[in-house]
Amino acid sequence: MQQASFDNNTICAISSPPGTGGVALIRVSGEDAINICGGLVNKPLKDVEGYSAHFCTISYKGKLLDDVVVTLFKNPHSFTGEDVVEITCHGSEYVQQQILEALMELGCSMAKPGEFSQRAFLNGKMDLSQTEAIADLIHARSAAAHEVAIKQMKGGFSSELKTLRDKLIHFASLVELELDFPEEDVEFADRKELYNLIDELIVHVGKLKESFQLGNAIKNGVQTVIAGRPNAGKSTLLNSLLNEERALVSEIPGTTRDSIEEVLNIKGIDFRLIDTAGIREATDHIEKMGVKRTFEKISTSSLLIYMYDALETKTKEVEEDLIKLDQLNVPTLIIANKIDLLENGNTLPDEHLPMSALQIDDAEKVKESIYDLYGAKNINLESTIVTNARHYEALKKSHDDLLKVKKGMDDNITGDFLAMDIRQVLYHLGTITGEITTDDLLGNIFANFCIGK
Amino acid sequence: MQQASFDNNTICAISSPPGTGGVALIRVSGEDAINICGGLVNKPLKDVEGYSAHFCTISYKGKLLDDVVVTLFKNPHSFTGEDVVEITCHGSEYVQQQILEALMELGCSMAKPGEFSQRAFLNGKMDLSQTEAIADLIHARSAAAHEVAIKQMKGGFSSELKTLRDKLIHFASLVELELDFPEEDVEFADRKELYNLIDELIVHVGKLKESFQLGNAIKNGVQTVIAGRPNAGKSTLLNSLLNEERALVSEIPGTTRDSIEEVLNIKGIDFRLIDTAGIREATDHIEKMGVKRTFEKISTSSLLIYMYDALETKTKEVEEDLIKLDQLNVPTLIIANKIDLLENGNTLPDEHLPMSALQIDDAEKVKESIYDLYGAKNINLESTIVTNARHYEALKKSHDDLLKVKKGMDDNITGDFLAMDIRQVLYHLGTITGEITTDDLLGNIFANFCIGK
Repeated sequence: MQQASFDNNTICAISSPPGTGGVALIRVSGEDAINICGGLVNKPLKDVEGYSAHFCTISYKGKLLDDVVVTLFKNPHSFTGEDVVEITCHGSEYVQQQILEALMELGCSMAKPGEFSQRAFLNGKMDLSQTEAIADLIHARSAAAHEVAIKQMKGGFSSELKTLRDKLIHFASLVELELDFPEEDVEFADRKELYNLIDELIVHVGKLKESFQLGNAIKNGVQTVIAGRPNAGKSTLLNSLLNEERALVSEIPGTTRDSIEEVLNIKGIDFRLIDTAGIREATDHIEKMGVKRTFEKISTSSLLIYMYDALETKTKEVEEDLIKLDQLNVPTLIIANKIDLLENGNTLPDEHLPMSALQIDDAEKVKESIYDLYGAKNINLESTIVTNARHYEALKKSHDDLLKVKKGMDDNITGDFLAMDIRQVLYHLGTITGEITTDDLLGNIFANFCIGK
Repeated sequence: MQQASFDNNTICAISSPPGTGGVALIRVSGEDAINICGGLVNKPLKDVEGYSAHFCTISYKGKLLDDVVVTLFKNPHSFTGEDVVEITCHGSEYVQQQILEALMELGCSMAKPGEFSQRAFLNGKMDLSQTEAIADLIHARSAAAHEVAIKQMKGGFSSELKTLRDKLIHFASLVELELDFPEEDVEFADRKELYNLIDELIVHVGKLKESFQLGNAIKNGVQTVIAGRPNAGKSTLLNSLLNEERALVSEIPGTTRDSIEEVLNIKGIDFRLIDTAGIREATDHIEKMGVKRTFEKISTSSLLIYMYDALETKTKEVEEDLIKLDQLNVPTLIIANKIDLLENGNTLPDEHLPMSALQIDDAEKVKESIYDLYGAKNINLESTIVTNARHYEALKKSHDDLLKVKKGMDDNITGDFLAMDIRQVLYHLGTITGEITTDDLLGNIFANFCIGK
């Protein structure tokens, strides 16, 4: 295993959310954790057992700081695999700061973002994709994002990748063994079996790679543009869709992407709804720019809701709009609004969803249709879903290299080249779980963690 | 002991600060705590020991929610005195919410603000003034506020009050005993000793009562107005005072009193600096109102910094200002600014602090002077300092009643009236530590706590 080097000093950080609360949790990890914390509290910690909690007072330089509960976890039976002491103090920012300062004066370093998780990885407590899943879990806002993250954290994805790699490593070794007997023209690796395996892997890795589109949507939400002519009722739709969910919307203050207007959670999946300027034949320059921007926005979205006023808009106008929008190739839900005002006898095309802005029940129909349009009904959270862009990149490279291996076999390339191509596949798969790592890679990954985890 | 009634259902709340972090702590307390939490995690909790921690997975309705560490505290050896389970989960808001919902579906109630502390009080784990000190500790922003709160939490104030009460109870009993022998005209209670005790208590309770002015300043900061003629250099002063402390200022987002402009911490005490409109003979109505408001602000402040431009302002003008300000009876620091530009030979009155706005060293001199002016040098944090307005009210009433007892003795009132007056003193002292409580009183106190504590 290529391993990144790291200081084995003792680190500390506030692990609970920042701010004031009933209690706060300060985590200390490293060789000297028990020794350093023992110097602050009024009970000897040296000989106590792991997984035990102790009510103590904590003082520094003769000044009483707080009453705390100290919980010990001993190497290797801890989150990081090192000795860990968790100090639960009162949730005063002043007290938290004082304890942290005392710990640092006694020799602890301030933990860098994600450093506890990084140590867990480097000490073999979990692989890289599992530690990355912790960060995803912490930031999960929806049931689906939570489910995918926790499955990955528990090693579902890792064991799937391990199975794939192990099969391939077996063949790579056989092919490489052949290279040791260049004159004898032996084939330890059954080419037909290898060929079948490569085919199988191309399908499997391809599926994982493709799951990222869904995974990314689960993690970051499905961008959904609402477009239509002015006064079609887009804002009313937005309001009635969000009616029951307004509380949920306000619970997500972290959603700070510029263009997001509202987040609608349908059955555990976040749809990021974006209202747009109405589309129509623009008469002046500024309006033309607005319409242009709407089209740009739609083209980068996952879904489009096109809405028209069934009473006022001419069938021909709707058709014109739809022809233009069709060129953007975005799955589209067409809603015919104000259907309650329409005279009997006027019929709608089958694929147009009728809606009356006055009836709240329609909002449920629309939600159902958005969910269906996205193919969410087909989402199987049981299968592995890749949510991490880094994993996606590695899977893409593995997939490309697998195709290269296959082509090489078709072209009857020599064993040494074949072995090299197979090693490339193994390399890229290995970066996902961290069999292959570099300092740079680890630095990038853990820099995105929060401090204290 | 008069006791407030309370439900003995099992309660739960997020005890760590709200928001996202590495980990979060959920506290469960009550008869069913171990049973309910045991139903969520994959380890039996029923027979484990108190003060033990357990790494578990937590699931509800077949859905895996998180990996957690569960720590158990058993009745009566817990914060509340009941069975307590603390669940340390990942600091995802979604996960915290899911666990909380599962706990409530299994029979927990959501804890009301301060309900854990209230139970600690009602179960005799700490008295009322100690539980109130926890809230103070959590919101302490300065070293002095922290020291006073922690001393109170550890029972310093309580034991002082207990000593006072015990002495008085002894005499109250003796006086009441006399009432049982109305015909015999006995005096079990030595009137001279009682008289001396009442005198001693008047001094002692008076001192505690008076410490509130300081205590309140320590807890909420010392309101300090900066006033002076326009262009005296008030803003420059404010800036140079805050120069080194700007980071600290930004650390206090909770300071939301309307009129506070900046908080300056000098040696552990917060001074709330308020810049004002310049004072001078106002020429128009609006300006007159501004000057009036400045005078009002000064009259409600603890300290005043009056600043003038030693170069531009005439001595007579300064004298006029000082005569007006003197009527407000607020301790005043007089600063003569721009002293570096003054010609040699011009001397200042001794009590005027010379300052050159260009020299940063002067800021230190000013800080020292503010600290001295407040009498902070004489602050003895070793002695008991009352910081709680409720305690102050009770002490004031006790003090009044003690004076009444004394007057009664001077007037030779009968034993039954004397006993009644002494009981009043005992009543008011008893409300501080909670020997005497009512539901209303408890409701008011704990409503100001944060949830989860």
